[in-house]
Amino acid sequence: MLITLTTDFAPKDPFVGIMKGVICGIHPAARVVDLSHGLPPQDVMAAALILKHSAPYFPRASIHVAVVDPGVGSARRPILIASGGNYFVGPDNGVLSLAVGPDPPARIFHLSNPTYHLRPTSATFHGRDIFAPVAAHLALGISPEAFGESLDRFVRIPWPRVAASELGIEGEILYIDGFGNLFTNIREPELIALPKKNLVVCVGELVIRGIARSYSEREPGDYVALINSWGLLEIAMNQGSAQQGCRAKRGDKVKIRVNPQ
Amino acid sequence: MLITLTTDFAPKDPFVGIMKGVICGIHPAARVVDLSHGLPPQDVMAAALILKHSAPYFPRASIHVAVVDPGVGSARRPILIASGGNYFVGPDNGVLSLAVGPDPPARIFHLSNPTYHLRPTSATFHGRDIFAPVAAHLALGISPEAFGESLDRFVRIPWPRVAASELGIEGEILYIDGFGNLFTNIREPELIALPKKNLVVCVGELVIRGIARSYSEREPGDYVALINSWGLLEIAMNQGSAQQGCRAKRGDKVKIRVNPQ
Amino acid sequence: MLITLTTDFAPKDPFVGIMKGVICGIHPAARVVDLSHGLPPQDVMAAALILKHSAPYFPRASIHVAVVDPGVGSARRPILIASGGNYFVGPDNGVLSLAVGPDPPARIFHLSNPTYHLRPTSATFHGRDIFAPVAAHLALGISPEAFGESLDRFVRIPWPRVAASELGIEGEILYIDGFGNLFTNIREPELIALPKKNLVVCVGELVIRGIARSYSEREPGDYVALINSWGLLEIAMNQGSAQQGCRAKRGDKVKIRVNPQ
Repeated sequence: MLITLTTDFAPKDPFVGIMKGVICGIHPAARVVDLSHGLPPQDVMAAALILKHSAPYFPRASIHVAVVDPGVGSARRPILIASGGNYFVGPDNGVLSLAVGPDPPARIFHLSNPTYHLRPTSATFHGRDIFAPVAAHLALGISPEAFGESLDRFVRIPWPRVAASELGIEGEILYIDGFGNLFTNIREPELIALPKKNLVVCVGELVIRGIARSYSEREPGDYVALINSWGLLEIAMNQGSAQQGCRAKRGDKVKIRVNPQ
Repeated sequence: MLITLTTDFAPKDPFVGIMKGVICGIHPAARVVDLSHGLPPQDVMAAALILKHSAPYFPRASIHVAVVDPGVGSARRPILIASGGNYFVGPDNGVLSLAVGPDPPARIFHLSNPTYHLRPTSATFHGRDIFAPVAAHLALGISPEAFGESLDRFVRIPWPRVAASELGIEGEILYIDGFGNLFTNIREPELIALPKKNLVVCVGELVIRGIARSYSEREPGDYVALINSWGLLEIAMNQGSAQQGCRAKRGDKVKIRVNPQ
Repeated sequence: MLITLTTDFAPKDPFVGIMKGVICGIHPAARVVDLSHGLPPQDVMAAALILKHSAPYFPRASIHVAVVDPGVGSARRPILIASGGNYFVGPDNGVLSLAVGPDPPARIFHLSNPTYHLRPTSATFHGRDIFAPVAAHLALGISPEAFGESLDRFVRIPWPRVAASELGIEGEILYIDGFGNLFTNIREPELIALPKKNLVVCVGELVIRGIARSYSEREPGDYVALINSWGLLEIAMNQGSAQQGCRAKRGDKVKIRVNPQ
């Protein structure tokens, strides 16, 4: 069983390495894969999006650990979710929620059994003291039920709604990757439902005509709208940074209009 | 035997990857964990702190390699220290010293035996040519004595002293993590020795009342002082960056005063 | 067979992790090493240099995957090159070319067999959909011929020429590492061919006398010219950043003059 790690820890800090040390101490043969580190601090939404769109590419029965945890040490619960044959471990703040489908119903456990925690357990680094040791024990074959009592529900982050209007649809920018590509909440089926001709994508003052298949269908330095590898509408600049070009930021509105012919 | 790597190499540079290539060439089944990369160039103190506070979370008999090596190619010696059941490999510039306890006495070896170096051996990248191959051979079971003659001493970085005064104690900022949390040299026992009531922590013009248990005991955006996961007094901002907030930098003084009631 | 990954993906993005998920799904025991990530976007030359100077330090029969791919989804071909006992996988844009020696002749394959691709295959992320699954299958022992038809040639990036003049030689800055060290295209043999005495290295207005063996042969803060661990002439600053000091950038000319005595 493979363990993945997603955190907002910076590469220079040893916090991810320390989690791996804890895992290896419990399960010397554990396989650990870094999924994402150095996310903007406390950006629960970014980590949730990453888990959702990455987990399907991992073998079944993987254990995905997310440590974006602004509420560490507060009443927020540490949880384990078993869903769709995979396991998700982290704080109950929504970070795991986008990756968990609606059915079949997920099984949720409160990580309340101190047998599987490091002790003393700090109030500032549950990645080291709770999530890493739980993931390692789970990978060793400990049953999910052993980690604590089951829960009826967990905190869900809603997927931001795409609004329909007379002129088309309106979404927003959800994530901006390292290339400066702008990922929106508009999914391929919502786009396919629109008339194919004369589609126009607008972000702020930027207007892009048509949906391309790849970046290179536009000239270098030109903006391009396409369905990206996560199945989302993305605004990019071929061989450049759309984010730097148009100064867009997370939450900015993205409008798709169907121009009259 | 697990090998950890701590360096000031940037993620975009292939220097860490090259070290792993050398290790795998010598010991194909070696397990290598990244502890910290991208430290500020030549920041020996940061790497020493990281090793000290990370090594205890790794299995016994791990090999910790640190390559923060401003004196590479000079007379500074490449060394191996066996201490407390673990091994530390790196330049003799103090980077290994905080992780090595005072007793039982450590065994120290000069990595002078070229049998275990890559040849030709560069004067600019001992991580590749000396430390990686030595770590790989050590993990294969080669005896520490084989790598070179034993030494009586090695360079130690002193832990910066916490000064006592009539009004309380005075320490300094040792490390600033990726969240902008300010780690000080003041340890939990030094804090516990003070009267619990009316403690005030001061950094520059910033004044924080009381020691919290977790970040979330304060409102988002408020400063908080707490004992962190390394057992050190830390100044943080809940869901924000204390470093950006108060512009503190490494070496800045931190005063703890016990206010009269 | 070890798989290395070199990309221009940012550490915070999960794209490298997703590639590892795909690899582990196909070949659960695969060994994957990160060589370089977070390269400047679309910097094919930097990735090509890294592969050239890193591959020799990996065990024979390693599989080196490079995903710096501005033309993804265009007519540029995905290829596999078998050369010198190693394998190179990536887009046919020159990124693999510097690592492939002139003889014995390399065998080149077009990755056109969809059996070894993820499906549906995106037009924006061939790292996930083509290069990762091909590398995993190759590591499992699938024959290079199985991935597609063989090709006669592939795109080569030329090594920038070092020009000779009456006064000496002239090269350029090829790569700037995380320390701010300036790597040039001038190789050790070209330097050795010059008279040893009175050599002067010039970059912009910066003038450095003599070639040192290590950084520490100069005072901290002083510039130094030396042959680096890749066998290239490098301009550095001892315990500082030459790049920040002299504001040099990639492509800037570097002149070596032999001063009359």
